[in-house]
Amino acid sequence: MKKIAIMTSGGDSPGMNGAVRAAVRTAFYYNMTPYGILSGYKGMIEDNIFELKHSDVSNIIGRGGTILQTARSQEFRTEEGQKKAVENLKKRGIEALVVIGGDGSLSGAKVLYDKYDIKSIGIPGSIDNDIYGTDVSLGVDTALTVIMDSVDMINNTASSHGRTFIIEVMGRHCGYLAVMAGIATGADAVIIPEVKPDLDGIISKFKKRAEDGKTRNILIVAEGAGSAYEFGKILQEAGTFDARITVLGHIQRGGFPSYFDRVLGSRMGAAAIEGLINGRNGVMTGLQGNKIEYVPYEDVFSRKHEMNQNVVKLLDILT
Amino acid sequence: MKKIAIMTSGGDSPGMNGAVRAAVRTAFYYNMTPYGILSGYKGMIEDNIFELKHSDVSNIIGRGGTILQTARSQEFRTEEGQKKAVENLKKRGIEALVVIGGDGSLSGAKVLYDKYDIKSIGIPGSIDNDIYGTDVSLGVDTALTVIMDSVDMINNTASSHGRTFIIEVMGRHCGYLAVMAGIATGADAVIIPEVKPDLDGIISKFKKRAEDGKTRNILIVAEGAGSAYEFGKILQEAGTFDARITVLGHIQRGGFPSYFDRVLGSRMGAAAIEGLINGRNGVMTGLQGNKIEYVPYEDVFSRKHEMNQNVVKLLDILT
Amino acid sequence: MKKIAIMTSGGDSPGMNGAVRAAVRTAFYYNMTPYGILSGYKGMIEDNIFELKHSDVSNIIGRGGTILQTARSQEFRTEEGQKKAVENLKKRGIEALVVIGGDGSLSGAKVLYDKYDIKSIGIPGSIDNDIYGTDVSLGVDTALTVIMDSVDMINNTASSHGRTFIIEVMGRHCGYLAVMAGIATGADAVIIPEVKPDLDGIISKFKKRAEDGKTRNILIVAEGAGSAYEFGKILQEAGTFDARITVLGHIQRGGFPSYFDRVLGSRMGAAAIEGLINGRNGVMTGLQGNKIEYVPYEDVFSRKHEMNQNVVKLLDILT
Amino acid sequence: MKKIAIMTSGGDSPGMNGAVRAAVRTAFYYNMTPYGILSGYKGMIEDNIFELKHSDVSNIIGRGGTILQTARSQEFRTEEGQKKAVENLKKRGIEALVVIGGDGSLSGAKVLYDKYDIKSIGIPGSIDNDIYGTDVSLGVDTALTVIMDSVDMINNTASSHGRTFIIEVMGRHCGYLAVMAGIATGADAVIIPEVKPDLDGIISKFKKRAEDGKTRNILIVAEGAGSAYEFGKILQEAGTFDARITVLGHIQRGGFPSYFDRVLGSRMGAAAIEGLINGRNGVMTGLQGNKIEYVPYEDVFSRKHEMNQNVVKLLDILT
Repeated sequence: MKKIAIMTSGGDSPGMNGAVRAAVRTAFYYNMTPYGILSGYKGMIEDNIFELKHSDVSNIIGRGGTILQTARSQEFRTEEGQKKAVENLKKRGIEALVVIGGDGSLSGAKVLYDKYDIKSIGIPGSIDNDIYGTDVSLGVDTALTVIMDSVDMINNTASSHGRTFIIEVMGRHCGYLAVMAGIATGADAVIIPEVKPDLDGIISKFKKRAEDGKTRNILIVAEGAGSAYEFGKILQEAGTFDARITVLGHIQRGGFPSYFDRVLGSRMGAAAIEGLINGRNGVMTGLQGNKIEYVPYEDVFSRKHEMNQNVVKLLDILT
Repeated sequence: MKKIAIMTSGGDSPGMNGAVRAAVRTAFYYNMTPYGILSGYKGMIEDNIFELKHSDVSNIIGRGGTILQTARSQEFRTEEGQKKAVENLKKRGIEALVVIGGDGSLSGAKVLYDKYDIKSIGIPGSIDNDIYGTDVSLGVDTALTVIMDSVDMINNTASSHGRTFIIEVMGRHCGYLAVMAGIATGADAVIIPEVKPDLDGIISKFKKRAEDGKTRNILIVAEGAGSAYEFGKILQEAGTFDARITVLGHIQRGGFPSYFDRVLGSRMGAAAIEGLINGRNGVMTGLQGNKIEYVPYEDVFSRKHEMNQNVVKLLDILT
Repeated sequence: MKKIAIMTSGGDSPGMNGAVRAAVRTAFYYNMTPYGILSGYKGMIEDNIFELKHSDVSNIIGRGGTILQTARSQEFRTEEGQKKAVENLKKRGIEALVVIGGDGSLSGAKVLYDKYDIKSIGIPGSIDNDIYGTDVSLGVDTALTVIMDSVDMINNTASSHGRTFIIEVMGRHCGYLAVMAGIATGADAVIIPEVKPDLDGIISKFKKRAEDGKTRNILIVAEGAGSAYEFGKILQEAGTFDARITVLGHIQRGGFPSYFDRVLGSRMGAAAIEGLINGRNGVMTGLQGNKIEYVPYEDVFSRKHEMNQNVVKLLDILT
Repeated sequence: MKKIAIMTSGGDSPGMNGAVRAAVRTAFYYNMTPYGILSGYKGMIEDNIFELKHSDVSNIIGRGGTILQTARSQEFRTEEGQKKAVENLKKRGIEALVVIGGDGSLSGAKVLYDKYDIKSIGIPGSIDNDIYGTDVSLGVDTALTVIMDSVDMINNTASSHGRTFIIEVMGRHCGYLAVMAGIATGADAVIIPEVKPDLDGIISKFKKRAEDGKTRNILIVAEGAGSAYEFGKILQEAGTFDARITVLGHIQRGGFPSYFDRVLGSRMGAAAIEGLINGRNGVMTGLQGNKIEYVPYEDVFSRKHEMNQNVVKLLDILT
């Protein structure tokens, strides 16, 4: 294998640049020629493909977002779009892809192999931590660092005023960010999509806290469980909790990569190239314990990332 | 003067703890006895007043919010409430107050002198920078640091996707935070309450940027100029700008005090005590250039903090 | 088991407060009474032991160092000292200990069981990551975050001047911090105690970089491999590398706990109490993959934490 | 005036990139053509001069160091070198310079006008804050932020162990960084070059603290006042203070620009261009109070930046 291309796709996540850098440097180490594709499948179709030099990835490991950019592509869903994309790879002799992104991005890679024989290895990039096959996806540690710093700041003002705050974090189907942020910040309650919220329990708890002289309450809500504004209304109707709302939004996605994500991206980027060299294809790099394993796309798509129940219980103990 | 009391009141702002610490330490330096009042005028009425020891203010200079807490007090607006409050001061022999807060908090201090002969010096704490008589209020530098860090992060993801972002910052009547954040982050446009927004101009600019291949747009809006969501709708109707909204909210208020605010708080806290010793009363400490001056409450209340027009022009040049 | 005591011992490490908090809260959850011992074995001998309340551990999870403090104790090495210490535990009915610290601290705990029948579970706190039985010790992630931030800053000035910098990091017997920091920051070379340094190779590399127009060089040295100043002299004698030296020192130890260390400390603190309840004794909590396991003290003392060789190779590929 | 060139020279300081960006953007605003000179006077001699485009300065305001780089130049001290440099400016029609740097860099600019009629305006870049004519130089706020964060971290570990720490900060002739860091961090003592150190006083103070049960001591030393290692020996000989030493070194210079330095650089960069347009020459932009003033080079060179004595007294009160 001589020529490979690297792309980022779907929502960006911190650490993608570390993975790009490692894939490029590892390709050079094994005498391969790395290409970059700009803006994911969109760029593949529009022939936005270019050779990457060693210095193109210098000093990018600490930068947020992705230097290869990302975009959605409706056209790639069509056979015509796919054929254009494949044509652009083949005319350069590109034999395989490193695809950094979420489920949807890896599905595209699967199509490219099943229908057009383009090999690929995926790298899970998603701040939600909702991808099966890896303990943690690229970007999760940074997103949680940003959330933690924000909740710490809100705690400062909440403690000064004796106020209730509801903080909405990302996570459409997955409460991972909310639970882990709850543990890391000492939040008073957490609501996640996986579990029906016990609003009466929360209201009782806050009332009991008030009786004990604790007038600060921090409630973290995963967006998939409902709107922070709605929960705010419910609390307000329940008593004297005049809750302030914070919706953290995209600062969760745009953080500067943490130590953990820089290293994870570097390990996965290198493992992707080494996997391709060793004949692997149609697999995603997954952090399992302390090792990077290769997980077949089928497993990634058909199974669900499960929340560690010990951690959910831990939250219950600590709050 | 032997006994003075220190309180924080109104919205909390970063740096208040540095001011409290400096006031306490300076009082000890001049052999005075400092008291703390918990939760502002509310605590004054409820007799939540206690002597402060040297060690009570150790290691607080880096903490956000205010260790003396703050609260609103309807009761203090009544003569009955005021009398209770004054009684609690007088029974301890407290002769003067250091009041850290915004306009409203200083108005309360003025009432206490005009009607009850309790002396005071104010310290301007307000992240909005809307207080006359000081170049910068306590907390502004930290709030801008938090905003800057947040906009940098949003810029990371916006640049990766070629997206338009609208970021709503605090400032009901005053665009200071929005303008200065615009300069510090290289935002593409800023909307403030003081100036009618030129939405057509902004839309033209963003369209021109798109023609030049720049698909990232960062628009900062001060809350007093309108809702970020509304401006988002206008942009969307104007063309293809599918803007994402971020409302930073209370993380702007709860930041960990910056170097600047730690020093400003320390200088103002010491100046307040020294002012009282030197017979000053009914004045607020103001940073004017490199000096701390004493500004009469009347001036603070009757005049308006003006935006430096050079800075507004600078924003225009740089964006 | 009704009464347990918690202590931190040896060098402090970030995350210890999270572990203390979790142990206290978990003890309450299971209706046990938690005690704190101040300054490790020294405090145990001097009877510096006190009951911990729920609120004693509020808002400590984000604080660096350890609220229980730590100190060295020569006296604990004597039988007389040990007997005093045990007496102080027994008179309160304390049946078991949670000991947070390094190898030396756990050895003390082993002595207390072997000779005096005091049970214990250890939690590995060490920024060097030199403790067998856990993938990562408490404090390592934070230490690496501090190192990474520092090297990023040095890189800023090194790149502006085209200079060579040598940065000495902690690690007497173990190059873990140096290697991982090298990966996370894109350093140009790393020297660790485990491997004889190839100084000629480094000099050749730097000379080649200079020929390619890259005049910035970042060399990270683990303290156990030799002094940064000595390596600086060697580089200087070898050619034109006028290296600047930075010895990071204790800022590596004093960082504010990262997200990772807050959660790791919380998990280990809870696991220690649950282990004691389930009859475990003489074991250390270890992070193995995604799980907390219990590792016998004997294994901890007799075996060595091995550097992941994949990571060493990765550094070689990326630099 | 149609063509101007911008350069950074001497030691780099945070905020230089903001000044470069603002000078470039302001030049475009007034329809001038900006050039960049790489590596200061060295690049001027070696003809490393190039036109700057609008996008060359995009997204640099948050980057540390200087994108224009900096270097020392012995050759510029010779008439031959100067003539080469001037020739390279004149052949492009460059009429004036914006020189960002310290005293030495501005001296070079003065020579260029006195002998070769090249106009210039200087911008004070120096983390030491030792330049006359400006309340604060570019980079000081960021350097102090880095120092403050480091001392906070050292305080975490010092408080946990009850240890004495000596932290050496930059400042060869000027104790500004040490004094201000002392205020901002609550240090226990500060030693600066301007004042003969009262070591007996410091030792007595630390002994008294020990008697009061405060075993943590933080001593900040400006490098110009002597070596932290030497002061450490003196403390050790004086009693039981086994002091740990930290030399912060170049992390003080390489920080990511703070909010304050981003804005200060932007204001000064714009003011430099506007000054040139308005016929000013041989002056440095200085922050005086809230305004940017133009200070003649003669004053800058012949006078000394004086420490604000109120601040020195404040330190005395607070420690």
